[in-house]
Parts: sequence; C-alpha cells; structure tokens
Amino acid sequence: MTLHNIIIPGFQFSGIHCGIKDDPKKKDLTLIYSENPKTLVDGVFTTNKVFAAPVTVCREVVKKGFGQMVVINSGVANACTGSIGLKNAYQTQKEAARIFGMDASRVLVCSTGKIGDKLPMKKLIKGLGKSTQHLGPGNFVVAAKGIMTTDEYPKYAWVKGEIGGKKYVIGVMAKGAGMLCPNMATMLAYVITNLNFTQATLRTIFRRAVGQTLNRITVDGDTSTNDTVLVMANGLAGNKTFTADSAAGRKVEKQMTELLDEMARKITLDGEGATKCTKVFINGAKTVAEARKIAYSIGNSPLVKTALFGCDPNWGRIMAAVGYSGAHVVQEKLKVSIGPHMVVKNGQGVIGPSDNFKALQNYMKKQDLEITVDVGVGKASFFVYMSDLTYDYINLNAEYHT
Amino acid sequence: MTLHNIIIPGFQFSGIHCGIKDDPKKKDLTLIYSENPKTLVDGVFTTNKVFAAPVTVCREVVKKGFGQMVVINSGVANACTGSIGLKNAYQTQKEAARIFGMDASRVLVCSTGKIGDKLPMKKLIKGLGKSTQHLGPGNFVVAAKGIMTTDEYPKYAWVKGEIGGKKYVIGVMAKGAGMLCPNMATMLAYVITNLNFTQATLRTIFRRAVGQTLNRITVDGDTSTNDTVLVMANGLAGNKTFTADSAAGRKVEKQMTELLDEMARKITLDGEGATKCTKVFINGAKTVAEARKIAYSIGNSPLVKTALFGCDPNWGRIMAAVGYSGAHVVQEKLKVSIGPHMVVKNGQGVIGPSDNFKALQNYMKKQDLEITVDVGVGKASFFVYMSDLTYDYINLNAEYHT
Repeated sequence: MTLHNIIIPGFQFSGIHCGIKDDPKKKDLTLIYSENPKTLVDGVFTTNKVFAAPVTVCREVVKKGFGQMVVINSGVANACTGSIGLKNAYQTQKEAARIFGMDASRVLVCSTGKIGDKLPMKKLIKGLGKSTQHLGPGNFVVAAKGIMTTDEYPKYAWVKGEIGGKKYVIGVMAKGAGMLCPNMATMLAYVITNLNFTQATLRTIFRRAVGQTLNRITVDGDTSTNDTVLVMANGLAGNKTFTADSAAGRKVEKQMTELLDEMARKITLDGEGATKCTKVFINGAKTVAEARKIAYSIGNSPLVKTALFGCDPNWGRIMAAVGYSGAHVVQEKLKVSIGPHMVVKNGQGVIGPSDNFKALQNYMKKQDLEITVDVGVGKASFFVYMSDLTYDYINLNAEYHT
Repeated sequence: MTLHNIIIPGFQFSGIHCGIKDDPKKKDLTLIYSENPKTLVDGVFTTNKVFAAPVTVCREVVKKGFGQMVVINSGVANACTGSIGLKNAYQTQKEAARIFGMDASRVLVCSTGKIGDKLPMKKLIKGLGKSTQHLGPGNFVVAAKGIMTTDEYPKYAWVKGEIGGKKYVIGVMAKGAGMLCPNMATMLAYVITNLNFTQATLRTIFRRAVGQTLNRITVDGDTSTNDTVLVMANGLAGNKTFTADSAAGRKVEKQMTELLDEMARKITLDGEGATKCTKVFINGAKTVAEARKIAYSIGNSPLVKTALFGCDPNWGRIMAAVGYSGAHVVQEKLKVSIGPHMVVKNGQGVIGPSDNFKALQNYMKKQDLEITVDVGVGKASFFVYMSDLTYDYINLNAEYHT
C-alpha cells in the first residue's frame, strides 16, 4: 500500500488552495466527506474560555451526533472575531450544505491560523465550489496537507482490521503544534473509519483514546482557541456493533490509541522548533490530579525543556519542577529516572561522573526520551508528552511580526 | 554619594572568593554582620516543596526573631543534598558563630548555585576566617557582588529618611533571576536598615513590600529551591517605634516597596537573557486569586514572552493566555491594552494597520512595557512583572552541560 492509497470506504477527501493563504502553492481548504448521511460523529474541543467561532458550530453538530462533512480552512483562525466570526462560521456551514446537497446541521467547520482576522468568505465559498471537482476517495494525504500551518510535514496514519469477518480501516490525520497565530499552530485531528459503532461505544472509545494521547501533549503550555479532534464513523464495514469493553472494543480502542499516540508524538516532534519528544511518567502520586499537576509542571518548565534541548541530564531542574507543582510531595521520598538511569533516590542525586553518567549522557542524545518520577506517597499515575525548547522556537515565535 | 559609600550604621559587610567557584576572580562568599545582637530579622522563603538545607536553617532563625549575621555562598545551592546538606548548613552556622563570637541561633545561612553538589566545607570555613579581615561598614556593594551567579551586574539600592528627627538608611541588595542550577539563579534579597521597629511592624511592612514586588516576578515560572528574602533592622536609628499603618509606617512601607520594586525590575531585566521588563496588570477579575491566575498565565506564556522579545503586539496570544488561565472570564467582556493602546474591546481586536498601529509598534520597542487586561466581571486586581523569552535564554540554559 503506497502512502497515497489510504482508502476508507464511503469517505472522500479534498485539499486545495482557495486563496486564504497568500502563497498559491500552499493548500488552505480541506474537506472530509462521508457518503452516508447517518455517519456518527463525536468531538473533543479546546478547554480555552476564549474559543473560536467554528468550535461553537462543531459543538452544536456533535451534540446532535451525526456529521457528513468537515470543512477545514487554514490561514485564518476565525477567533476573537465576535458576532461576524460566528456568522461567517454558520455561513460556511450553510454554503457547504447547499453545494454538496446535505443537511447544514451535519456540516462541521474548523479553522486554524491567525487570531483576529476575519474569514475571506468569498474566497472560501468559491473554494467550496471548486472542491466539488477535487473530492475523491484517494485524497486522504492531500487532505492532510490542506490542514497544515507551521507543520513541516503532513501527519497521518492508518490501520486495517477485521471484526467478525468484516474488514475495516481507521485513518487519522492531524496538524499541530504549539498554540496558534501568528504561527497558526492549532491542534486539529480527525479520526475516520468505516466501522459500525453505537453512539455510546464510539464516544467511549474515542474519548479514552484522545485522553491517553492528544490530550497529553504539552509543547508550550499554551492552549489554542481552536483545538478540535473529531471522529467520523460511517458504519459501512457492516460489522455487528460492540461494547467498549468487549474484545472487539478493546482491540479497536488499542488501535485508535496507537494511531493517536503516533499523531501525538509527531505533533510534539514537529512542535515549534522541537528536536525531541519526551514522555514524562509520574507514578506513586496521591491522586491522578496530583500526578497530572507534577507531569505538567515538568512538561511546561522552560528550564527542563532547555536542558532536554542541550542533552543535559539536569535532574535538579526536574526536582524543582516537582517541588513547585503544587502537588503533595515529600522531598525525601522522591525518585527520578531518566530512561533506565536512576538519577535521584530519597530526594538526593545518585549519579556521579562515572560510567553510568557517560551512559546517561549518551541516552540524552536520543530523539525519544522518558523521564519517570516516583513520588512515593500513593498509587496514582499520569503521563504527558513534552517537547524541548530551542532556538527555533524563539525564531518562529519572535521573528514573525503581526 | 558615590556608589561605594552606602553606610548603614551598625552593619558591616564583606564579599570574597573562598574557592567554591573555580574562577578566582569571582566572589563566592558574602557576609552581612550586625554589631547589635538584638537585631530583628524576618524572612520570606521559597514555596517550593523541594527546598534547600539553608532554607530550613533560616526558617528556624526567623522564627526566633533575631539575627546578627547572614552567611551567603554562591556556586553551590546545597539543595537535594539530604542529611549531609543539612549538617553542612548547621556547621556553617556554628562555625560562623564561633569565629565571630555570637550565638549560633542568630546566624542565617543562604546558598545559591548548583543543585545536588555538596558544600566544600573546608573552603567555606577557611573563607569565614578570611572574612574577618574583610568585614567593614563600607563594603555594601562588594557584598552585593559576592551573591551574584548568572547576574550581569550587582543589584542594590538604598534610601535615606528621617522619623521624628532620627535619621535612617534602608539598603537592599538582591540577586536573580531565573531558577537555579546550572545557571545558579536563585533569587536572594536582603533589606538592611538601622530603623527601630517592633517585631510586628517590621513583619507587616516587610511582608507587604515583598508581596507587592519580589513575589510578583515571573521569569520562567520556575520557583527556586533556595529563594530567600531577609530583612534585618538593628534599631540604632533610635526612632520611636511606630505601627505599620501610622504615617511613619506608611512612609517606610512606601520606601521599602520602591526599593524592592527596583530590585524586582532589575532582576526581571537581568533574568536569563531577558531584554524587557513588562508589568502585567489584571483588573476587573472576580477575585484576587482569579486575577493572579490570569496574570501568571500571561506572565508564564512562552508565546507572549517571545512576542515581547520580537516587539510584536500580538494580542491574540494574550487573549489565549487569559482564556486558558482557569479563571472565570467571559470572552465578550475582555479588554486588553498594551501601554496606552487599546487592542481588544468586547473580546475583539480593535486596532488595525493604521497610525495607531504604528504608535503601538513603536511602544513595543521600549524596555519597560505594560499590559493591562480588564476582565469586566468584578473588581479584583493583581499584577506581575514578566521577562521576555530570547535566544540568550536558550543559550544560557541549554548550552551549559552538567
């Protein structure tokens, strides 16, 4: 199977340039289209209280449970645009419904790009019309390119499976990361499958998978106004439905989690200027909420991030981040490992300039790293993916001018 | 009055190289000595749950209320050093008491430098002995140099005053900022005065002043394991004591706040690689805690920080940081100003590429900036000082190797 041959029965895709971005070589409008009007949809959205107009529209569609099309533009975020922004999002929905002949309440819209700018509606609507000639089942990768902003490469993955003799495909595409304008780096991700789900099972599996993956990324601690993850399932595989905790449910959840894990890793590594993806595991915390606090405290620490960039096993910075996390910790009980190397035991450094230290230094040069903190006061765990902080981050985010 | 002539009656200072730092040109041991054994002391310490041994010792002294000497070493933080670290801190206290002939319970110790390393006690004790020949009333600035780590210049300020015909001086010295090892950038600050205080008044005024200044700095959101601010008041001015809310109390509080404000500003500007100091004011929040959340959310946002470095009036990033702060906000009620320029009203951008925008762009080039957010849902306010995020931050923090 070549890269350009990801077929998910019953779905069509397009990715074109319609003029939202200045550079005609850059795609800025992607459509995901399902032939089945009864395609199930669910979504997870930004928790930011300053959220963009398209998020409002998506939430409404998801609430009703069915979606047939997603219209995604890149270049303009349609955020902080007030009532005009909301009107434009609804108009996009309506025009897409008119052009493709479907119920407007089944059209989802997503935007990613510069905050504050209004959508160029004429260009966008013209682009929707033009897309009618581009939609096709073989355009999955082209669509993944249409949602890119600061991304260095399109991000997608897929998996095939069989349940009760019925074949299915799950495909995911994503973009990110970092926050937003001016680097237009909202996280968007789409899971598309021909599996036959009940609404409840889809919701459970999808949300568990997102919770273990895309919801664990921290590039700069900034939450975008536009973050959106959607799943669409058209049921065409014809398999019998299953519960989330059945064998089939577990299998599908595992597959979806693995696909989204790959997206999370790729988004982190393609985070603004990032060179490394580090998984930070917290064990032995009092509660999951406390483990989460510690994980994000490390994951968002600019000092830990710069140490990772410098390939420096600077456990003092990790310890400090644990200490100011706000979680209950007892200094003397803390253990910290970097990869297989224990660097802190009983709250004290346990690695010196020996052979172990050389091995640790070599480990730090890897692209994928693990930091594990054992808090030693309970049984709760949590993990996050973190990026490093590099010259290119500053370059991307400071050198751009509004 | 030249810079090297800050005299605070009854106090002596020294700053020498004792060998904790490799470079013999760099001072690494500072003493602050009060001739009066009944000198009042108070302190404010790091809230980090991973805190250094000297912080434990200082807390004990402050609890008793009297302090005659502060021993401050730079180069080694004596943090995450377990029971040996605590033993070393107590030994420092004891040796200083022996050498200078005072009660050990009146000796405070502070360390700043690399986490995990043990104090070189022989060098330190030898340095205490050597300091006997260096202590003098005219060495205030020399002492300020002895506490520097990544600081580019010593930070100090002083003010003179008169209460009921009695003359007094308040001097402050500080170091910072950023977090710690390997850039050894703990915040330490010392307020030294010959004013006559009651313990209660000193405590009230000192803590109010610190709360409005040094406790409002955010360079990278990382709280050091060693942060310590101490005040010493020897009473030699001979003024009548006063309450915190009397005219004299208000005057002294204003002076102390102004001195510490200058330190806060200098620490922020000398923060690791920083080029700007921005005061972020939040008004109209529901509670002070919520205003605080928003202020720190903006102050710690790498995206806002890089925009400041790039002199880019990127209000979208400010809006996003307000939105994800966790505070109660209503998007449509938000107002944002950068200096005198309103950039967001009713949650929408209100500045375009016009004359105003030119003025705003020019404003962004200043070293001292102000960002004001009006949340519009209450009456509570808060502010923080924030630094920008620059190439030099990455350089300082990534290029160093443990």
